Formats: sequence, structure tokens, C-alpha cells
Amino acid sequence: MHLARLQRLKSALTETALDCVAAIAGPNLYYLTGLSFHLSERPTVGFFPREGDPVIVAGILEESKIKSKVPYPLRAFYYTDADGPAAAFREAATALKLSHTQLGVENRRMRVMELRFIESAFGKVVIEAAEETFAKLRMIKDSLEIDLMRQATIIAERALAATLPQIRAGVTEREVAAELVVQMLRAGSEAELPFSPIVASGPNSALPHATITDRVLQPGDLLTLDWGAATGGYFSDLTRTFAIGEIDSELKKIYELVKNANAAGKAAARPGATCANVDAAARKVIVEGGYGEFFVHRVGHGLGLEDHEDPSMHGQNELRLETGMTFTVEPGIYLPGKGGVRIEDDVIVTAHGCESLSRYPRELEVIG
Amino acid sequence: MHLARLQRLKSALTETALDCVAAIAGPNLYYLTGLSFHLSERPTVGFFPREGDPVIVAGILEESKIKSKVPYPLRAFYYTDADGPAAAFREAATALKLSHTQLGVENRRMRVMELRFIESAFGKVVIEAAEETFAKLRMIKDSLEIDLMRQATIIAERALAATLPQIRAGVTEREVAAELVVQMLRAGSEAELPFSPIVASGPNSALPHATITDRVLQPGDLLTLDWGAATGGYFSDLTRTFAIGEIDSELKKIYELVKNANAAGKAAARPGATCANVDAAARKVIVEGGYGEFFVHRVGHGLGLEDHEDPSMHGQNELRLETGMTFTVEPGIYLPGKGGVRIEDDVIVTAHGCESLSRYPRELEVIG
Repeated sequence: MHLARLQRLKSALTETALDCVAAIAGPNLYYLTGLSFHLSERPTVGFFPREGDPVIVAGILEESKIKSKVPYPLRAFYYTDADGPAAAFREAATALKLSHTQLGVENRRMRVMELRFIESAFGKVVIEAAEETFAKLRMIKDSLEIDLMRQATIIAERALAATLPQIRAGVTEREVAAELVVQMLRAGSEAELPFSPIVASGPNSALPHATITDRVLQPGDLLTLDWGAATGGYFSDLTRTFAIGEIDSELKKIYELVKNANAAGKAAARPGATCANVDAAARKVIVEGGYGEFFVHRVGHGLGLEDHEDPSMHGQNELRLETGMTFTVEPGIYLPGKGGVRIEDDVIVTAHGCESLSRYPRELEVIG
Repeated sequence: MHLARLQRLKSALTETALDCVAAIAGPNLYYLTGLSFHLSERPTVGFFPREGDPVIVAGILEESKIKSKVPYPLRAFYYTDADGPAAAFREAATALKLSHTQLGVENRRMRVMELRFIESAFGKVVIEAAEETFAKLRMIKDSLEIDLMRQATIIAERALAATLPQIRAGVTEREVAAELVVQMLRAGSEAELPFSPIVASGPNSALPHATITDRVLQPGDLLTLDWGAATGGYFSDLTRTFAIGEIDSELKKIYELVKNANAAGKAAARPGATCANVDAAARKVIVEGGYGEFFVHRVGHGLGLEDHEDPSMHGQNELRLETGMTFTVEPGIYLPGKGGVRIEDDVIVTAHGCESLSRYPRELEVIG
């Protein structure tokens, strides 16, 4: 699996000006090698050239992990704390023979520390941004990735089911959030969640990125839960909105619109459609319902090893969907001071349309 | 409080060659402004010049947070997603008038992305590492920080007390770890823990950085728990070792040595003593007990907004302790294949010695 990913990268590099890409501890290195490193003061950098075997620079403590896990030839250069990493970077540069060539790095992830070691060791190499190369590579998920995302979704849905009986008028947003986290861990999520759950009640539900407060849930509230679990490094990211007791007719109306927009967005997702098409299909339902101005964000975002990755599902993205892409479909309507609704599913593009990994019902559920 | 921190920074800068330091979303920016930002694809950078008011570059969505929270004059330059951050960085550079001067950045935290924006906007500025400046500043904790660390320690100790009744022969390390996390959240820890707890039983307890396994606890095991909570951004980091039923006499012996080493290390911590003195005091007990070669790490590390910060409590660090420094004292003995003991307290240096923030008893406790 990791060898196939490496081969896809090498083939992708032939379509760029880059001779090699570098990845520090994090999702891209994990994706290509299966190696998970803690981002620390000891740099770990993998180098993946268009031709020849990859190279890794790492602290000596990582040697046994690297030797046991990587399923293809990898030239490793280790350093001790006493010596520091500079010599290992120089050895890596010699092994890669990259002078006068272009090296792509992760501008949004690599730190100045790693950059300085590379600049010193690699001499005349031109350093460019490689974000797009990595993003393209990771957009199409393989079967191992899909299995893990399925599992992360099941964990999140089990956690919701276990949390709901605790939710009623009188409890606070913070209490609901703590219970949701506890239930995700009990259901088997990794301790490092993709993000802290959003629990937004009443007027707070009108804020798309609400922070948790001590507000007490009240009858008549909408309650939005936006939460996700992690397994094997892969994430789920779901949202459901509930009614606490009887809610007013306008809130019921926007709920139905968002539910239909969620369904319309998913119905538009298929190979050959653009990201913009999915956004437009969901948005059309809300605009025609008279609430277009209250749907203030894109319809979704790519999901996988990161909570927000490519493809970005916004109205200007003309990228065409392909089988194996995974992203969220999460339209919302937010009425300031009153309340909001968002319904978010995680989907994978299939041969003829898309499959929602999340199954939890989207009908309005009255609780508490 | 934050104004006093800013003034301490300005005064510290007069002792360096730096005219200004920059901090991205993370602990240094939080320390100086009270502003907590998510590290994202949208850069947030604070600039703190030796003279004049600080400057911040941030996305427009952060405007209300910045306006409401920072308790001193701060010149803010915002950008929209449509425009991108480059112009805001140029405006910040103009406001700071830093041409031909030295700018310190966080080499181990700042990303290539922020560096490139700074390089483009600041022209002839020389970029240096500022890690040491920030570390020195943050080593001495103020009363707000100490209160938060005290609270994080109480949360961790409550979580231990609530978890212990669940621990017995027959449960797995993974089950104990999940329960410990759950109990920390119930006791009020922030969801983002300082680190995933270590639960190491039997032979696994001989690994200082054991990863959690499905090993079932057995009578005769030593069981090491290394865990910490977070509150207001500040961490606790504790370790206790327990006996599962009756343990053999050598394990009892190393337990007593480590307990005495922990006490000796704390007794050596006072203003004017060096970090090396604390390490030596704890190590002496273990060496004289005949187990020196099995105490394979430094006696501790600084603790606060980061799980590992300055001062590093190792045998070569001649830094003198000062009132208000906080660090761990955590000697250990690790007998390969057999078992290990570590006892870790979090302490603060006081006028005449040190105070342990952690109170949980250090006597050998037999459980299960």
C-alpha cells in the first residue's frame, strides 16, 4: 500500500518542476511511509526523489521504528543529541545528489528549523512549495484509508448515540461536550481528536464556529453538535442539529431546508461533477427557500488525515471529482440571535455517485 | 499581568542583539497577549519590538477576539481570504520600521509560510533564532501561571483517585489509559491533554517512554502511570508507580530508592542551586543504592505552557534556579525485562526551597 503511494508520488513528480519533495513529521510522511513521529525539537525529514530510493533523516531513537515499518528501501541517516542533526542532513544531501535542482517542501508545516538544516546541507537547491503536489496525491483515498474513515465515522456515531440520553434542558453546553468526548474515547477513538467538539445551543447555534460556553440548554433551543473521531490517523467530522423540546415554526422551516440541501449536495457528488457543482446544488435549495444570505460558508471540505484538506468544496472550485475522493457535505442556515442548523455528512465518491460514510438519521429529532 | 510580561520582554531584548521578536499562534503569543489561536493555514503573527507598541497580523475573523482581549495598545493589521496576508505583513513592516535590524523568530515553531511572508515584507531585516529569549522569559512563572498549574495538578490527582478503583489484575493497559483520560475530562481538564498518558505494566514499566499495549495486568507487576491535565493552557505532568498484588524484593528495593531519590531531588531545589545540583542529588541516592546504570534519563524538565520547556534539569545544566521556576523531579530505575519505577512531582522554586504542587502520596501502594 505504501509502496503504491510512493510510486504514485514519483509519477506525479514527473508532471511538476520538482526533482524531490521533503516531508517532516506529520500526515504527508505518515501517508508515504506509515511512520508516525511526534513533532519535536528533534527534526525528522523524509526526502522523496523522482528517481531513486527515498531518504530519511531522524534521531537515533527512531531507528528501530524506521527499520521495522517501512515496506520499501529507505536510506536512513541518524543523529544523536550530542552531535545534532547537521551532519545527517549533509549525508542525506550527498546521497540524494540534488545540487542545482528543485526541492519541494511543506510551506504550511515545515518549520524554520528544518528549512535551515536543509539550506545548509543542500547548497544550490531551489526550495519551492510542494503543498499542491501532496494535496493532489492524498485526495484519492485507497481502500486502507477508506476502511479507517469508515471506522472513525462509526465511532463518532456510537458516541453520539451514547451521549444523547444525557442531553436535556438544564444541562450546559460544556457538560454535553465533555460527555461527547468521553463517549468517543469509550467507543475507541484515539485520544487526539481531530478537533474539540462544537456544542452550540439557542442563539449560539447561529455561529458557524461557536466556542463552547456554560449556557444552559432551554426548551425551544436548537442544539448543534459538530464532532469527529480519529482512528489510525484518519478522521470523521459530523454535524447534527437537534430540537430541545418544541421549537418555533421558522426554525422548523430552516431545518427542513438544510436537510434538503444536504441531500441535494450529496446527490450532485459524482465522478465528473465539479466541487462547485456540489456547492451549487446544496445552495440552490437554500436560496430558493429564501435563506441564501444565511448560508455563509462553503458546502464542505476534504477530509482524511487532516480535518481540512483538499478538495475544498466551494463555489469557485472547478476541480472535477474522482472516485475515491472524500469530503464533507455540510450546508447550514444561521439566523443571528435566533439559532442555526447545520447537517454534515462525510462522503466518498463512488463509480456512479457518492456514498455517505455517516448513517445517523437527518430527520429532526426532538430531545430533552 | 500581560502588560508586565510585555515589559519584561522589552527589558530582556535590551540584553540581546534583537530589535524585535515575532511569535506565531502558540504558547509564546498566548503568554504575551492572552490570545489563543488555532494554528491554521491563515497565519497569525505577533511582533514585539524593543521600542514602541506591538503589532499583530491576523485574519479578519480574529478581529473581535483581538480587540476585546489584549490589555495594552496593539497595532493590528487584518487580511481577508480574498486578499491574502501579504499586504498586511507589509503594513506591519512599515509600522514597525525594522529595516536593517535583527528580528528574532521561533525556529522550532514558525513555519516556512510565515517566514516567507516576513522575508518578502521586511526587506533587509536579519532573521535570527529567538527561542532562548522566549524560554528565559517564560521560565519564571507569575501568580496567574502558578494558580493554573496548581489547578492542573489538582485535576490530575483527582483523576488518579477516580481511576484507581478500576485498576486490578485482569484489566489491560489500554483500559486503564482510557479510564484515566475520561476521569481527567470529568475532573475538568481541557480536552487537549499535554500528552497521552503512559500506562506501563510488568516488563513494559522498564521502558521510560513505553507506548500503551493490550497487556493484561498481572499479580506481581509494577504499574507506572505517567499522566497530566491542562487548564487555561497550563499543564501538569505526574508519575506514580503501583504494585499489583505482592511484588518481589528487588522491585520493592528499587521502589524505595526512587522514592528517596525523588525526595532528595526536591530537597536540593532552591534559589541559587543549579539544575545539575538537583539531578546530582537524586542520582546520588540511586548510584549509592547500586542502580546508577539503570537511571537512564535526566531528573526532570521545565513545565508550564509546554510539556517540555526550560529549564532542562540535566547533569550538565549549570543554570541557577530562581524563585518561580517550575519543573518536574522524576527519577526512575528501569530493569530491562523485569520492571521499572518512576516517581514524578511538579515543583515550584520558592524563597527558601521548593514546593511540590503535587501531593499524592509516594509510599508504595498495593492495588488490585
